[in-house]
Amino acid sequence: MDNESDPKKQFGQVVREFRQKRGLSQGDLGDLAHLDRSYISDIERGLRNVSLVNIIQIAKALGVRPADLMQNLG
Amino acid sequence: MDNESDPKKQFGQVVREFRQKRGLSQGDLGDLAHLDRSYISDIERGLRNVSLVNIIQIAKALGVRPADLMQNLG
Repeated sequence: MDNESDPKKQFGQVVREFRQKRGLSQGDLGDLAHLDRSYISDIERGLRNVSLVNIIQIAKALGVRPADLMQNLG
Repeated sequence: MDNESDPKKQFGQVVREFRQKRGLSQGDLGDLAHLDRSYISDIERGLRNVSLVNIIQIAKALGVRPADLMQNLG
């Protein structure tokens, strides 16, 4: 599976874009989402199969709706 | 956390609604999504913290976009 079609990578790219737009570091986002900075880093690199509950926490921390993080998928 | 505010329950209700609209049994959906029928049952009852990859498989099986399954969240 190449990068283009791996949903974990696609999801990670969207998280990174929203985070950077907001001027947040990975550590900032981790603090806001109650997740470890290294976990945020892994998500953005497409290494994690993120769960529903964590998707929602990340969306809240970024000030977007969970569905906004999934718009480019499927 | 009550039923109303538990995102796992909210997600499960949306999956159930789409499945029933399509006239699919839980077993049908499991077959289409390459997931066990009992896992689909658990999801619909809000017992599972579903992962990104499984959300996408379920969306594909239901003929909707992953974001459509998240519309009522957050």
